[in-house]
Order: sequence, then C-alpha cells, then structure tokens
Amino acid sequence: MQSPRRGAALPLALKEGFAYTEHYFQQTLDHFNVGNITLFPQRYLLHNASWSGGASGAPIFVYCGNEGDIVWFAENTGFMFDIAPLFGALLVFPEHRFYGKSQPFGGQNGPKELAFCSAEQALADFATLILDLKRNLSAQASPVVVFGGSYGGMLAAWFRLKYPHIAIGALASSAPILQFENIVPYTTFYDIVSNAFKREGEKCFEIIRNSWTAITEAAEQQNGLRNLSQDFHMCSDFKNADELINWLESAYSYLAMANYPYAANFTMPLPAHPVRKVCQAMVNSPVASSILQRIYAGVNVYYNFTGAAKCFDLDDDPHGLSGWNWQSCTEMVMPMSSNSNTSMYPPFEWDGEAWSRFCWENYGAIPRPSWVTTEFGGHDIKSVLRNFGSNIVFSNGLLDPWSGGRQAMNDSFRFVLESISSTILAFVTKEGAHHLDFRWSRKDDPQWLIEQRESEVREIKRWLSEYHQNVFVI
Amino acid sequence: MQSPRRGAALPLALKEGFAYTEHYFQQTLDHFNVGNITLFPQRYLLHNASWSGGASGAPIFVYCGNEGDIVWFAENTGFMFDIAPLFGALLVFPEHRFYGKSQPFGGQNGPKELAFCSAEQALADFATLILDLKRNLSAQASPVVVFGGSYGGMLAAWFRLKYPHIAIGALASSAPILQFENIVPYTTFYDIVSNAFKREGEKCFEIIRNSWTAITEAAEQQNGLRNLSQDFHMCSDFKNADELINWLESAYSYLAMANYPYAANFTMPLPAHPVRKVCQAMVNSPVASSILQRIYAGVNVYYNFTGAAKCFDLDDDPHGLSGWNWQSCTEMVMPMSSNSNTSMYPPFEWDGEAWSRFCWENYGAIPRPSWVTTEFGGHDIKSVLRNFGSNIVFSNGLLDPWSGGRQAMNDSFRFVLESISSTILAFVTKEGAHHLDFRWSRKDDPQWLIEQRESEVREIKRWLSEYHQNVFVI
Repeated sequence: MQSPRRGAALPLALKEGFAYTEHYFQQTLDHFNVGNITLFPQRYLLHNASWSGGASGAPIFVYCGNEGDIVWFAENTGFMFDIAPLFGALLVFPEHRFYGKSQPFGGQNGPKELAFCSAEQALADFATLILDLKRNLSAQASPVVVFGGSYGGMLAAWFRLKYPHIAIGALASSAPILQFENIVPYTTFYDIVSNAFKREGEKCFEIIRNSWTAITEAAEQQNGLRNLSQDFHMCSDFKNADELINWLESAYSYLAMANYPYAANFTMPLPAHPVRKVCQAMVNSPVASSILQRIYAGVNVYYNFTGAAKCFDLDDDPHGLSGWNWQSCTEMVMPMSSNSNTSMYPPFEWDGEAWSRFCWENYGAIPRPSWVTTEFGGHDIKSVLRNFGSNIVFSNGLLDPWSGGRQAMNDSFRFVLESISSTILAFVTKEGAHHLDFRWSRKDDPQWLIEQRESEVREIKRWLSEYHQNVFVI
Repeated sequence: MQSPRRGAALPLALKEGFAYTEHYFQQTLDHFNVGNITLFPQRYLLHNASWSGGASGAPIFVYCGNEGDIVWFAENTGFMFDIAPLFGALLVFPEHRFYGKSQPFGGQNGPKELAFCSAEQALADFATLILDLKRNLSAQASPVVVFGGSYGGMLAAWFRLKYPHIAIGALASSAPILQFENIVPYTTFYDIVSNAFKREGEKCFEIIRNSWTAITEAAEQQNGLRNLSQDFHMCSDFKNADELINWLESAYSYLAMANYPYAANFTMPLPAHPVRKVCQAMVNSPVASSILQRIYAGVNVYYNFTGAAKCFDLDDDPHGLSGWNWQSCTEMVMPMSSNSNTSMYPPFEWDGEAWSRFCWENYGAIPRPSWVTTEFGGHDIKSVLRNFGSNIVFSNGLLDPWSGGRQAMNDSFRFVLESISSTILAFVTKEGAHHLDFRWSRKDDPQWLIEQRESEVREIKRWLSEYHQNVFVI
C-alpha cells in the first residue's frame, strides 16, 4: 500500500525462475447494475509449472491484485511461487481494475470512469474470474485460497468473509483493515514510521524532526527554492517548500515499510535495514554538515541507492499506483494525523472536511468515509468475528507502519496482533516490515521469518485438509 | 415470495393491537458507485411500544423488507410483535427499494431506473439504515437480529452472512436460497404444489391435471373464449387460453403457499386448510359436473372465499409486487419446470434462452442467472457453511412449495431441512406452509407450531446472551 504521500520508484529486476503467462478475461464492468452490460479485458497471470491439475483436486492460489501493475505484485510475492510445488498449486494473479493493463476505459479516466474503481467491484471481479477459470480448467474440485498484501491483504480477508463459497481461506499480509474512521488512533501510522527511525538512535529522529523548520526557512531565503533544488539534486526546481517536504515524507514512509533485513527492491532498490542506513548517513555526515546536508545524505540512500540517478524527478510512478489517489478519496479514507510529541513528521491534525474539499477539487471525488466500515465492518471486530468466519491469517510485522501494532489503544485495534479464534489467527513478527513474509525466500532469511512462513504453510495445509475431509465425507 | 405466475389479491384487515409509526430515511441510491450521490426516501416502520431503550442494550429486530408494500409484510409478521415484549425489542421494518412507498423515481420505472433494484442494493440499504438508526437512537450497544420471510428470508440470511458486523443473527423463514441455477431439481416447486393437492386425494390431483386439455379444447370452440370467460365469471373476456391457465396456475401455487391450518389472509382471505377446501369443492361438485365446472368450483374458494367478488380481474396487484418481475428477470432467475409424471401442471421444460428473450422483450432486462450463486453462494452450501458463519435459523414447512424439501436429490439441497452446524440450524415442520411461523400467534395454533416458535425464541435468546457475554467480557 502506498503511504499517504507517494514516492518515486525505479524498474525492478526479474527474479530468476519467475515464470508466468499473461491472459485477459472479459470482465463485467458493473457487477451491481444489471443495466450495464459493458465488459472490459481484465489481465491475469497464470503460473502452472507446479500445478497437479484440476482432476486431482489440487488447490488454486489466487493473489488479490491491489493498487498497481500485477506483474510488480507477482514479482514481490515470491512466497506463492516458493510454496506452489508443496501443494501442486496453480497460481493466479488477477489484476485490480484500473491498474496496470486492466483499464476499462483505456486509461482515460475521469470521475465518471473511476466511479467503477472500488473494492466491491474488485472483489466481484475476483469471484467472477475464479468461477469462470475453474469451469474452463475443469477444476471445480480445486479449493481456492486467496492471498494478498497491504490493500491486497484487505481484499483477501474481505474476500474470505464475503465469498466463503469461493475461497476456503485467506492469507492477509500487512492488511490494515482497521485503519478507518476512528477505529485506530489517527497518529498510528506516522508514530510507527517515527519509531522505526527512533530505534536507530534518538539523534536520527531529531535530525528529521528539526529539518522541517530548516527547510521552510531555507525556502524563504532569496533564491531559496532554487538553492534547495540544487542541494537536493532535483532535475527541475521545486515550486514550493511543500514539494520537498512531501518528497521526504514519502521516502521515510516507504523506508519504514521496506525496512527489510536484507537488500531488496520493493518500491526502490534498497540496502538491508535501509532505515538504519539512512540514519547512519544522516548521523555520520561530516561534523560540519548542515541539517539539510544530513537530510540529503540520508534520503539519497532511498532515492539513489544504486547511484544511477543523476537528478531526481518528483513525480514518476512506474508501478501505476495513481488510482490509489481516487480510492483514498472515495472509499479508502484512512484518517491520519501527526502528533508533535511522538512523531518526527510536521504536526498536523486530521481534517475530514479539508480532505473532502481536496478530493473534490483534485479528483472530482466525494469521500464516503463511513462506507468501508458499513460494508466490511471493523468496529468491535474481535467480538464480531469470534463466532463468525474462519480460516483467515493476518500477518503483520511490527516495523511496518501499517501494522498499527504498538499504538494499540483499544481492544479492537489489538486484534491484528492476536488471534481471535482457533481459525482466525494473527501471526506477528517483531522485526517484520511490510508483507516481508510474502517475499521470495532467501538463504539469509532470519529464523523468525522462516518460522512465520512455516506457520502460514501449516495453516494452509489445515484448510485444505479440512476442505477435503468435508467434501469427501459428505 | 410470489409464485412464478402471479395471482390477484384483496385488501387485508388489520390485526388489533398492531401499531407502528411510519418514517422515511434519506437512502443512498447507488451504494456501489461513488459517483452517484442521489438519495431517495426509503420508508420504514417502527414499533417501539415494547422497547426498553438503547441504554439498556435491548435488541433491535429488523424485518428485511421484500417484494411488496412493507405494511403488508408487517401485518403478516405478527411473530415479531408477539415476541417483542419478551425481549424489550424495538421493531424496524425497512421497505425494499422499488416497492410500496419506497420509490426512488416516484414509481416511474423503466429498465434504467430498475437497474438500481437488486438484492445487493437492498442489503446495503438495510446496513446503512440500521447504523444510522442506532446512532440517532443512541443505541450503539443494541444488538440487531434480522428476520425475513420468503425473499425477505433470503435477504435476512444473506445479511447475516455479508454483514455479520451489523446483525448478530438471522431468522430466515421459507427462504429458498438454493432455488438457483441447477442446485435443486427444476421440478421441485411444482411437484410440491402438486403433492399438496395429491395428499387431499388422487382425484383432486387428476381433475386439475386433466383440466388443461379441457380448457384448450373449450377455447378452440366457436365463442370458446367468451364462454370460458362467462363460466369463470371474469369481468372481461380472456384474450387466449393461456390467460385462464396462468390464472389457475397462480391460484394453485398460492394455495399451496398459504395452506395454513386456520383461516387466514396472506395474499387472499382463505379458509383453514384451503387446499383441502378447494379439492373438496372440486371433488364434491354434483356428479354431472364437467371438469371445468369442478375447476371453477375449486378456484372460487381461492379467488372468492368471502363471496364479495361479482366478477374477477386478471391483473390486480394490491401489494405492489410487480417489481418482482424485474428481479426475476435479472438476478432472481429461478429455473423451474413441470414433469408430466409428478406434476399436475401442464408439462414444460426450463428454457433459459426463452426466459432471456421474454425478459428482454417485456422488461428490457437481461438475466444474470449465475450472479446470485457467484455473489451469495449456494452450491455445496453445507460444506461451505459448516465451518463458516453462525447464528442463522432456516425455518421451513414441508407443505410450502418453496421448502423444496421432499424432492431432495443431493446433499446441498437437503441442507435447508437439517442443521449444518451447532449455530446454523434448520427448523422443519411437516405441516407448515409459507412462513407460517412468522404469523400472529393464535389460540388454535397447533402444538408443533407453538414448539417451532419456542425454538426460534430460544435461539434468539442464545444469540443475545452470547453477544452480551462477548461484549462485556472483553
């Protein structure tokens, strides 16, 4: 999932052995209006190298495509490729409508077109596609397990809850399903990012916290914006200080999400423990360095770890994430604020009305901030799900700002960090970042990560065994 | 729920003590398209004479309005009024959009308008209304139980499955949630109607079965339609034999649904055991009576039990049911056929393509026959729900053609007649008809009906007690 302010990224290298075929399905544009018979080509990827075939009842693992190009998500969900041989599983990666190549209107999207971009439509897309695929592959006996990370994890969990007749279980990694209305404290996200920096040293946290004033002051000098642009090696000049501030905020948020224990390439190629590296660059700059020089030294680790960039652009988006702006301005309203005591970000309050104005003026969108909790729930989720539903794993790493874990203020919120029934489980890792468990396995994986994945595999095996027992006994 | 071919009906008498207030809620027209901000006034009825108030955590019982005027359903759901005092419950009866007074377009409905008439929109209406009502009544602590009969029972069951965060349990009476695609045999409905007549004597069954040829032949005589119209006391002449055939078929279907053990008024004022009375009238006609005279004698019991009608109209619809034609031509496609060996109806096969043509030509509607099972499931429902979901009671009477019970051909189908888990239960009565359990209690209620209702009350108590334990323990 994107942080509230979006960062730039570079193309990804392909993992060796990563293989898929690309297909298109004629998908219903509007599942909820029978008068609309428009279809559009929805892309999906298939990986059938491990599949034992429908006749054997071998499972189908479906990744719930989220806000970006599905190839990118498939590349970053090596876990599914790694475990497919264990299960003889077919892998399916349906792309989320309005992202990547799944463009109902050829990418020409205004508010009227984007009105069809919603979680409900996306879930119904998955349902329709899966049932059609099972028919075409004569795989009616194959149980389906859904996977998803971040917003895709929310979709996976919701899919299991809303379509239990299609998916026997869901593995939802780093899915902030409670980040709506007032379920979690507004400050959660930025506090966790801030803590990720603070744990590398108070000094790092303070440099960043103090930098905002320094930036604003520098911008107000004569030729301030030009000088700042040069200091930060921008390809073109900042129009205002906020552009720089947003660019930095975004980098910090993504750094916390991608704070993996080894070098990786999620949104950007990054070193192992990237937050630590950024902090080291800031703190260990020459003694005489100004605060802005320290910030530049740090952020350069994020935006230019490979050293390939000669200068930086503010607004490139190679993963096709921009539809998220629309979604966060309609259904996916996640209130956030920054508290000056606990956050290294500039303090700000959540202002729902201002958000509505922003959304209307920029996207012609009118937020429905209560809709997600109406349609999918979230309040009192523990008592709601204690006796309802089954076979969902929520995995979270506490380093991930989306884990919301450490700021737990009430019971509902803590739920993602503890199991609520014998079949709705939370797997929490102290050192995990944003859906780390979904990445390719590596020789240098830490033991706790290996164990987390083993637990996930064990749980999937349990779902499948239960399914086959049920089906064959009847 | 209406039978596939619709019958006429008379106004209803009000039950003494039946009291409600009428309200309107500004409802979202399109829950699934954020670009549409149109609102419409949705009617709902409140009965608060028994309510202990939100502060006490007393429950809210919501009837899921189905395909007709909500006042009519409230009048025919005395069960909720009867049990409200036991629970200190508030009763809410939201009307289904496009029925009664809940007309988003003032009743001027073409295909473009009716496209907003769907089960998914109706469920989202209930969700939105209930949450708003709880806020306005400061009743956030009040658990909600949903009720529904027939299509309303399907909505109630689906509401519990899709909105478990809003309703803690559902009582679904005579809800044919499996009457889709090929889940149950197509012949089920008409076979059960036929059996209801056969159990009153083979002779009755044979008279009806032989009448269709007699009607067709009579219609082909000179002045045949005019003579038939006079024989059947129609206010205006039949245009073809099918009009008479449909009129009779509809009567038989409704008779089977309303085959209650006492005089009642559901679609029409009827005597106790109305199928028996109809059969008696047919069989006991003077020996010299023609088959058509016997049919008239029988059907007169249905259409004119009060003796008030001087002549009959084919097409009056006092309960505002006509939107069902649209729904059965879009989502609610329930395939049916009539088997010449087991049914007293004229034999016919289900023809999906012909149905599509009919729907398109008559309503501008394009059926989506696989949508309900995609969105709500139905296939293999037993294994799907065995480990998923909780707190649903499906009640069915085996006399009800919608019970689908006795034709069980496979496991999925039998489910409505047996419990599938400790909390998803089926209460089946051998002598029950269409949601008989939801009617007002009476002094002459048979013992099995009293016990059925006691079981339902016990189950609701269990849900509430579980809810309060969960909420207070946490």
